[in-house]
Formats: sequence, C-alpha cells, structure tokens
Amino acid sequence: MPIESFHGVFPYLVSPIKASGEVDDAVLARLCEDLIAAGVHGLTPLGSTGEFAYLSAAQRRRVVEVTIEAAHRRVPVVAGVASTTTADAVAQAREYERMGVDGILAILEAYFPIADDGVHAYFRAIGEAVGKPVVLYTNPNFQRSDLSLPVIEKLARVPTIRYIKDASSNTGRLLSILQRTEGRMQVFAASAHIPACVMLIGGVGWMAGPACVAPQQSVELYDLCRRGDWHGAMEKQRPLWALNQAFAKHNLAACIKGGLGLQGYAVGHPLPPQAPLTDEGVAEVRRALEAIGAL
Amino acid sequence: MPIESFHGVFPYLVSPIKASGEVDDAVLARLCEDLIAAGVHGLTPLGSTGEFAYLSAAQRRRVVEVTIEAAHRRVPVVAGVASTTTADAVAQAREYERMGVDGILAILEAYFPIADDGVHAYFRAIGEAVGKPVVLYTNPNFQRSDLSLPVIEKLARVPTIRYIKDASSNTGRLLSILQRTEGRMQVFAASAHIPACVMLIGGVGWMAGPACVAPQQSVELYDLCRRGDWHGAMEKQRPLWALNQAFAKHNLAACIKGGLGLQGYAVGHPLPPQAPLTDEGVAEVRRALEAIGAL
Amino acid sequence: MPIESFHGVFPYLVSPIKASGEVDDAVLARLCEDLIAAGVHGLTPLGSTGEFAYLSAAQRRRVVEVTIEAAHRRVPVVAGVASTTTADAVAQAREYERMGVDGILAILEAYFPIADDGVHAYFRAIGEAVGKPVVLYTNPNFQRSDLSLPVIEKLARVPTIRYIKDASSNTGRLLSILQRTEGRMQVFAASAHIPACVMLIGGVGWMAGPACVAPQQSVELYDLCRRGDWHGAMEKQRPLWALNQAFAKHNLAACIKGGLGLQGYAVGHPLPPQAPLTDEGVAEVRRALEAIGAL
Amino acid sequence: MPIESFHGVFPYLVSPIKASGEVDDAVLARLCEDLIAAGVHGLTPLGSTGEFAYLSAAQRRRVVEVTIEAAHRRVPVVAGVASTTTADAVAQAREYERMGVDGILAILEAYFPIADDGVHAYFRAIGEAVGKPVVLYTNPNFQRSDLSLPVIEKLARVPTIRYIKDASSNTGRLLSILQRTEGRMQVFAASAHIPACVMLIGGVGWMAGPACVAPQQSVELYDLCRRGDWHGAMEKQRPLWALNQAFAKHNLAACIKGGLGLQGYAVGHPLPPQAPLTDEGVAEVRRALEAIGAL
Repeated sequence: MPIESFHGVFPYLVSPIKASGEVDDAVLARLCEDLIAAGVHGLTPLGSTGEFAYLSAAQRRRVVEVTIEAAHRRVPVVAGVASTTTADAVAQAREYERMGVDGILAILEAYFPIADDGVHAYFRAIGEAVGKPVVLYTNPNFQRSDLSLPVIEKLARVPTIRYIKDASSNTGRLLSILQRTEGRMQVFAASAHIPACVMLIGGVGWMAGPACVAPQQSVELYDLCRRGDWHGAMEKQRPLWALNQAFAKHNLAACIKGGLGLQGYAVGHPLPPQAPLTDEGVAEVRRALEAIGAL
Repeated sequence: MPIESFHGVFPYLVSPIKASGEVDDAVLARLCEDLIAAGVHGLTPLGSTGEFAYLSAAQRRRVVEVTIEAAHRRVPVVAGVASTTTADAVAQAREYERMGVDGILAILEAYFPIADDGVHAYFRAIGEAVGKPVVLYTNPNFQRSDLSLPVIEKLARVPTIRYIKDASSNTGRLLSILQRTEGRMQVFAASAHIPACVMLIGGVGWMAGPACVAPQQSVELYDLCRRGDWHGAMEKQRPLWALNQAFAKHNLAACIKGGLGLQGYAVGHPLPPQAPLTDEGVAEVRRALEAIGAL
Repeated sequence: MPIESFHGVFPYLVSPIKASGEVDDAVLARLCEDLIAAGVHGLTPLGSTGEFAYLSAAQRRRVVEVTIEAAHRRVPVVAGVASTTTADAVAQAREYERMGVDGILAILEAYFPIADDGVHAYFRAIGEAVGKPVVLYTNPNFQRSDLSLPVIEKLARVPTIRYIKDASSNTGRLLSILQRTEGRMQVFAASAHIPACVMLIGGVGWMAGPACVAPQQSVELYDLCRRGDWHGAMEKQRPLWALNQAFAKHNLAACIKGGLGLQGYAVGHPLPPQAPLTDEGVAEVRRALEAIGAL
Repeated sequence: MPIESFHGVFPYLVSPIKASGEVDDAVLARLCEDLIAAGVHGLTPLGSTGEFAYLSAAQRRRVVEVTIEAAHRRVPVVAGVASTTTADAVAQAREYERMGVDGILAILEAYFPIADDGVHAYFRAIGEAVGKPVVLYTNPNFQRSDLSLPVIEKLARVPTIRYIKDASSNTGRLLSILQRTEGRMQVFAASAHIPACVMLIGGVGWMAGPACVAPQQSVELYDLCRRGDWHGAMEKQRPLWALNQAFAKHNLAACIKGGLGLQGYAVGHPLPPQAPLTDEGVAEVRRALEAIGAL
C-alpha cells in the first residue's frame, strides 16, 4: 500500500487527557477506529485541534504512538511537529519517523519574529531530517510567524516537502501557492476554507478538526468533488459549513471536544486555562451536528 | 429594461483626472464604451479603484455623470457613496439617484471606531433614502470599520439593501453571509476572492478593478460559471488569477491605471501622494495581461 | 508678540455643529474665550477631537474662522489640515494661512497604504506651501499611515516643520524623535501620553482634548513642570490622568463634548453615526472632572 | 536579609547555550558575578531576553540553578515561569521555589486566545502555589495574550502577587495600573519604557535586557531617580536610551548576546532559527555601548 501520496479527508485528532495528565489511550484509539470505519483517508494527531501547544513532550509522543497503533497501517498517520527551535523540531521529526508515522505536519512556533531566512531554514531542516513526506502548516491566526510565497516556493524544492496546509482563510492564497509551485506542492484546506472551493481550484483534500465529528459527511463531500459533481458537492457543503462557522467562533479544541462529547466520546475538555465550550457553544454545535445527521 | 437585478461583471472604473484637477471626460467615456462593447454587465464608478477617497465632491459627481451618460442605459451604473457621516452619505445617495444611477454602492469611512449600532444606522439610512438597490461594500483592509454578520443580517431586511460586496479575502465569510441572509442578500466577489469560487458557492458576479483591463476574459469566465462548466471555468480562471495577484501586491488604483495605460487609455496615475505603479509593477501587469491575451 | 514659538497647553477644540449643519459660532467662541481666560497657551481647532474627519470643507473653514476671531491674537491658533491628497492639503493650508492662523497641524489621511516617500512628499509640500510653523500630527490608532523615524528626521530639515504631536501612546518614541532630530523638532504630547513624563524628557507642552475640560488644571501642571517641581507635578498629574483614561476608553469627541456639556457648554454630540457618550461614560467623566475640581 | 521587597535594576539574563545544548554554566556564573559587582539589585533568569520560549525544561532548570548559586543570596533571583497550561506553570513555580528562588516572574503563553477568566485563573494559580512574591509579566508584542486592567486589579488581591512588569511601550498604562491597584501592586519598567519616566510616576525599578550590558550606568540612573534628581537622571537617561532603541529594532536576545559578546562574554548567539545580530546591528550596539562608556 503506497500511503505516501496523501489526499482526501484527514481529521485533526483531539488529544484526550485524563485528570492525571496521562493520555486516554482507549478513547483516542476508539476515535481513530471509528474515523477509519467512516472512511477517512488519514489521521493527523497534534494539529491545532490536537492542542500540540498545550502538551508535554511525553504527552505528544504518547498521542502519536496510540494513533499509529490504532491506524494499524490502514490509513497514513501524519503527526504534528512543532517547536521554536530547529534542533528540537528535527529531534521530534526523527523520533516520530522512527515510531512509524507516514508523514510530518511541520509547524513553526515563534516568540520573537522570524525573518524569511529563518523560516526557510527551520522547515528545510525538518524536510532534510526525514524520509517521509512533510506537510507545511501555517496558521497566521494563532502562530507568530507565517510562510511567505517566496519561502514556500523555495521549500517546494526540498524533495520531502510536498504538501501545505494553510489556515489563513484566504482561499486565493491557495491558488497563488499552487501556481507558484507549479505542481511540486499540493494543497490541503483547513477549517477556515470552504473545502469544495479548495477542491475546485486543485486542492487534494483537507486536514481539519470538524472532520473528527463529521467524518462520513466529509468523505461524501470529498467523493462528490473528486467526481466533478460540483452541484452535488455544494448541496452537501452548505449544511457542513455551519459546523466550520461554529468552530471559527469558539476555541477549536473546545469545540471539537464538545462535539465529540455529544457523540459519546469521553474526550474531556481542553487543558486549562483554556475554557470548556460554553453552553451556548454546545447548543450551536449540537444544532450543526443534528442538521447534518451526525448526532 | 429591468436593470435593477444586478449580476455579472461590474468593472470598478478608474477616475482619470487631468493635471488641472478636472475629470478627463473623454477618456472615461471611451473606457465605458469599450467595456460595454466587451460585454460587461454593469459599471461601478467610485469604488476603491476609482479613488473615491481621493476625490472632491465635485470630482465624484462628475465621474458619476460621465459614466451615466456613457452607459446610456445599456447597462446599470452602480455608483459609490462614501462618507464618515450619515447626513453626507444620504445627501450623496439622493443626488446620485436624481442624476440617474441604477444602484448605490454604499461605503462607510470611519476615523474613530464605530460600534455595530452606528454601522447599522449608517447603512440603513442610505437604504431608506433611495429607491434604487443598494450594494453594501466592506473592505476591512482599507476601511476603518467592518460589517459584522449580525449587522448584515439586520440590513438585509431593508428592502433596497439587496447586495453585498465583501473584499475581505475570506471566501468562507461570503458563504456565511449567504446562509445567514437566506436569499435576501446577494453576494458579489471582489478582487481578493477567486471569482469562480464565489460563483460556485452562489455568488451573482464580481465588482472589481481587474475587470477594467480584462473585460472580455472576465465575461467569458462568468458565462462558463453560469453554465455550470466548472472545469472550463477553472481553465479560464487560472491565468486570470495572476492579474488579481498583481493587484493585491500593489496600490489597486495605480495597478489598474497602469494596466489601462498599457492598453492605450490615457488615464494617468493615481493622485499624489499615491505613487504611480513602479517599473517592476508595470512589467508584472504587462506579463499578466499578455498571458490572457489582453495586450 | 512673537506667537510663532509654540509651547504649553493647546486644547484640541471640539466642533459644535447645529442640527442644521451650521457651526455653532457662539458656543465655540465662548469656549475659546473661557479657555484663554483659564490661561491656555494656544488653541487647536480641527484635531481628532475636533472631528476634522467628519466635517465638510465649509464647516472646517468656519471652525477656523470663528477660532481666529475669538482668539483675537491673544494666543496662537494652530489649525488642522487633513487630506488624502497633497493638492487638497496644500490648498487648505494656504487658505488657513490667508485667514490668519499662526500655525498648521498637518495630518495625512490614507485609504491605500502610503510608502515613506509619499508620506514625506505630502508633509514637505505642506511645509513648503506656508510660512507659518507646521506641527506634524500622527495618530496610528485612527489614521491609516504613520510617520517613521527616518521620515521625521528628513521632514525636520524643512524650515517651517518644527513640531510634532505623536499620539501613539509610546512615550519612548518621543525621546527617540527628540534625539534623532537634534533640536530641530520640538515635541508635543497627546492625550495618550502622561504630560509630566513628556515634559521630563524635553517636550514643550501638549495638544489634547482633555485640556478643553480642565484648562486651568492643565496650565498649573505645565507650570510645575516648567519650574522643575517634579514632585508637585506628579501630585497634580495623578488625578488628571483619570481624565485621559476616560478619553482613551470612549470616542474622544463624544467624551470631550460630553464633559463640556456637563460644564454648561451646549456643544452637542459628535456627528452620527458616531454615538453620544453613554450614560456610563458620562458618569465616568463626571467623576473625573469632580475629582480635579473642574465641575 | 529581607530580599522579598524587590526594587531597583534587575537585568534580564541571557541564557548561554553550548553547541551540545548544555547551559554554559561558567559564562552565566561570571556574568551574574559581574552584574552583582556592578551593583544591580536582583537577577532575572528566563525573561524574554533569556529565551525562555526556546529552552527545554531541563535547560530552564539549569539556568535557574546556576543563577541561584552565583547570586549566593547577595541579591534576589526572580525566575521566569512560562507555560500554556496552568498545571505546568504551577509545577515550574513550585520547583523553582524549592530550588531557592526569591520570586517568580509569571508569564502566560497562549496559542488559542484566552478570555479574561482564564488569564486570571492561570496567574492566580501560580500566586497561590508559592510563598515567594510573584511578578506578573505581560508583553503584548510577543505573547498571544495580555493582562487587562480589571484582571490586574483582581490579581493584586492575591497576597503573593505584588509586582507587574509591563512591556507594552504604553507608559500611561503603568500609571493606570498603579492608580487602579492602589498600592497593592508595584510596577517595574521594561526596555520599551523610559526608566526615568516610570520612576517619576511611581515605579520601583526596571527588569530589562539592556541592564545586562550597562549595569553600572543603570544603577547610577536608578540612584539619581531615587534621590529625586530628575535633571541629573535625564542627563544619564538620554545616552542610555540609544541602547533601548537598538534593542527595540532587533531581536532582543540577539542584541544582548551581541553586546555581551563585544564585552568579552562568550554567550554565543540566540538559538536557531533565530538569527545572530547582523553586522549593522553589532555596529549599532557597539556605538551605543561606547557612547555610555560600557565598552
């Protein structure tokens, strides 16, 4: 099975953490199992929704480990690597590769602003440290750095760096990236984009939290897009968009954990001082899930 | 001719101003004539590209007058009304309506931040002052105010307020607007959005500067979208996007004036202290126009 | 009387506008008279607090006219000139100079971003158009442009450009300006700075809305600073600061108009869609004025 | 020795890290020794300048350990605690207290935005976990959260939370904090403020990177302020300000490490992908240090 060509729906997994601080292996494994059964094309632990920024190195490692075991090589696992330093990011990426991930989702955290040269050096180092495909991830809403088009173009020349997930909400930027990298870089949408639009302009899928709570509907939407049935895709897309809107309004992790809670997964709440989803938020997520038959 | 249902390609006209400060009627009229001959569905004087923020009341009036005369009721003219005060905006809207425009593009300028109530009151006052359709225009990149979803939803209940042009680059927001206003508000794309994407999600067209220099290609793209030929639309869309990218990088008015200059329209440069398009910008626009056969 | 050397307390005057749209000459003249009686060192019509951004050219002209007449050459009048175009700004400055102002407060409004060269060209043109001293005014909170240190340094070489009022809240920037322009540029504080601090680092006074409602207290504070009685100055400064804090929280014009209303000046409210000061805001301003004996 | 009342000059220590990733104990200890000899009133490891955001838990711990040993209880050591989660922050604070620090500098890192309730809960938890005094540290330029005045007021009621260091560049905000907390909270300046101004309004000192390279001059400035010799203080302050300006322009850690390098401390460069100070930056820092006799 050549799982190195990524495409389709990759849910951003939440990270269920017990009161003791331990990862709740059972809940996470069951979620992975159910997502695969629903037809998702891959699993992405340690994205924004996975609270990578709130977990210790040990917690992160365990989340990756449990996901790999649960996936059991049925779908690719693309794990998030995030750091402020190049050395630490490279170490994480190598460790996850040894553990058996199929790809790396590379994230740059920054405290002081980083110039383009530094951004380029950081991601290139990750790309050169591993043999598996790397997905660049940029989220200018939450990260104190961004990937400029010239840097993306340069990084597209690193053999392993073959995908980008851009969570900027600027869909036009995705088309610019596709045109600028001339086929060397494939694009995944994030929850801030309308998946059908990203597929129309040439995207290969999406990596996003909402797919955790609506995996089957997401896969159906993906299939319609792939078949070129754009009318049918928009019929499916419209009610799904309400879900993305709810996620844009609230803390992403709180939202997906809240939605999974409604669906019977005891994933708990985001780690304090993040707040659990408010009652109003729960009602909103419930309505959105009911509208698409996901509850 | 029922020109009150707006749809299709509405170029944002530039405002050619002579060294004396007078509007260059002849150049503007010729541009309007050629755009109509190329098949555009409407004309929009005094948008961002039309430098509304840089013209005196007399200059603005003359631009509208010349456009109305040149259009000769063949296509609707939707003129920009922009002010910091409600009273001035209402006076402008009424005057343009008396002069014969077919619609108003309503813009709120702000110095101090304005709360939602004030934003609502301003646009409602314009909507209630005229009988012609009103297009809300929000451009959070350049204007010191924005239209929140709740305000848009309330304004959609004013009978004349039937369209919105959102220049935020956030395409998902357009789908949210369409869903929230449930058919009472139609959406036009701006140059920051990919027109084909906005058409896919239910938009009725676009109002944008680039259509000034690529009217025929824009109309062809629009027709492909209307026919549901999304594959063909994307073939047309891709090379056109390079144009929008150039406009996103440079001063919009400088860019369109520069492009029109290359096409033989003596529209001059944007008003100082705005800078003319740089040599590098001219080369970029030239390449983009040549690539789509517009030069 | 050599009124060309500006220093001390320059209240930013409000612009009282009748329902008819006319300037309320009587109220404005009485306010000017009382401020001069209270000892202020100059008058500044058409600053931010004066709602320059909300007035027509005719209203602006009348505000300047009434202020000049009321001042009767007892204190300098430094009138605000604001525009998006160089040509209009130069015309305004020349007209105000002909009308008899003692200085120009120069403001750049922008819609599209302006590069340093354009910012420099705009202010230099104003400086070269008049013989009276020019005060640069930058307020990055409300204006879509800012003056960089290199531009300020270059502008300090224009003979008429001798002062700057920076409303950025970054007091350190004022010291940087003073050091960089080596005595060719004098600095006025704005309401976002603590006047005593700006005087300590070498400022020559302040131009600010709050001085309209606390002229006597402001002059006393200025005198203590000039005498080098920093302990006494801080005693006076502390209760005055509560006033500035109230102004930072609310719309500046609404706040000063609200405060003057409490003091018996029928200056009305800011022009819609700006909102009048809320009840809570009125209570806050009342408390601040009572605490310093200004009510 | 009652070292729990903090005041005066607290240099923000850099963190010298060897190529192996180990803390360079000898260099750090020598720096601490020299700073104490120069008269500083305290030492602050793991502030922004100390690259807390770039170090592993083990590296942070070692930096604190070495500093405590080097200080040898001659001056208080106030160590930075920074995390995205409350649990981790509390654990760090308790561990540093056990290790012997005299105070905690509490920092909230955030990925998703945190509402006021969460910010309050985070800092209160730290304050209640330790017996030593806590200094709140907020730096809205680099941290994705800020402390609002109402939250600061509430936190000032936690017995251990007695200081705040605000790096916002808004000096007026410091006076607002002092007035709002009515003596329960003392204020330290940061390098974005003019120390003499903060002392004038009631500050108790400053915690900042530049004091690392100009300890003696900083202490002299502090003494002049304490004696109320404001004229003398400004004489000393002016040339020192050039140093702060250089630090505002460049990466803080790169700047201080670069300056210490010039002074003969082999502290190396900031951790990649942060860039070393550019040649131009080195020249600028050299000039600033020479001007004050610190090189």
